[in-house]
Amino acid sequence: MHELGEVTVTEPEIIDFACRYDPRPMHTDPAAARALPFGGLIASGWHTAGLFMRLFSTQVLNRARSLGSPGVEELRWLRPVRPGDVLRGRYEVLDVTPSGTDPTRGTVRGRGEMLNQHGEVVLRLVARNHFSRRPV
Amino acid sequence: MHELGEVTVTEPEIIDFACRYDPRPMHTDPAAARALPFGGLIASGWHTAGLFMRLFSTQVLNRARSLGSPGVEELRWLRPVRPGDVLRGRYEVLDVTPSGTDPTRGTVRGRGEMLNQHGEVVLRLVARNHFSRRPV
Repeated sequence: MHELGEVTVTEPEIIDFACRYDPRPMHTDPAAARALPFGGLIASGWHTAGLFMRLFSTQVLNRARSLGSPGVEELRWLRPVRPGDVLRGRYEVLDVTPSGTDPTRGTVRGRGEMLNQHGEVVLRLVARNHFSRRPV
Repeated sequence: MHELGEVTVTEPEIIDFACRYDPRPMHTDPAAARALPFGGLIASGWHTAGLFMRLFSTQVLNRARSLGSPGVEELRWLRPVRPGDVLRGRYEVLDVTPSGTDPTRGTVRGRGEMLNQHGEVVLRLVARNHFSRRPV
């Protein structure tokens, strides 16, 4: 398990992200959000995914020779993320598969999670990433 | 199938998104990206997902009583997205399940896609969204 570090979620960033990419009152309007199901402003799930990715890119992908990703098998938003929450990321390799056609490449399948300051998992994903392999 | 409209992808927005949420040279540095596998700057896959979500929130979720989403079953990045690409979104309902515990709610499972100006699918996802049901 790799610890990826922490990020603090702010209300201005929640609103800014959502105005661009998920413009719904529960993510953009603190007053309106109080009357909505979560009882207050919550981050777009795509924003939380972006915050995970910020940590994962910085701590993992930029330290290897990342060749991109074909996608995500599963992406779950398990709890709401609110202004002031401090999220920490972690990542665990599930399996590693050398390319069948190019011996210089391989694919890593791994599980990423974001946890809040109460230790609750707020986001979980399972993704595949392609890498250049180290020379043997 | 619901058509969700179009969005043009610009180089400044690709770089701005990636500096915040996916800071890797293939997404942030046009000169460095020329020597990387995709031969030029490409959008973060999370940025493309955000652009889909912008269309989906505006055209679908904000026209219903959206109650949030538990997650995405599958998220695939099928082709690179480059500056100047014009993406259009579409969405298809796969199935609708009334809540087993609350007759005022239900869950819609649907497939979303983004296609580029050549008609190629660049992103596909299958997501679940909770909604308030219309009174019968």
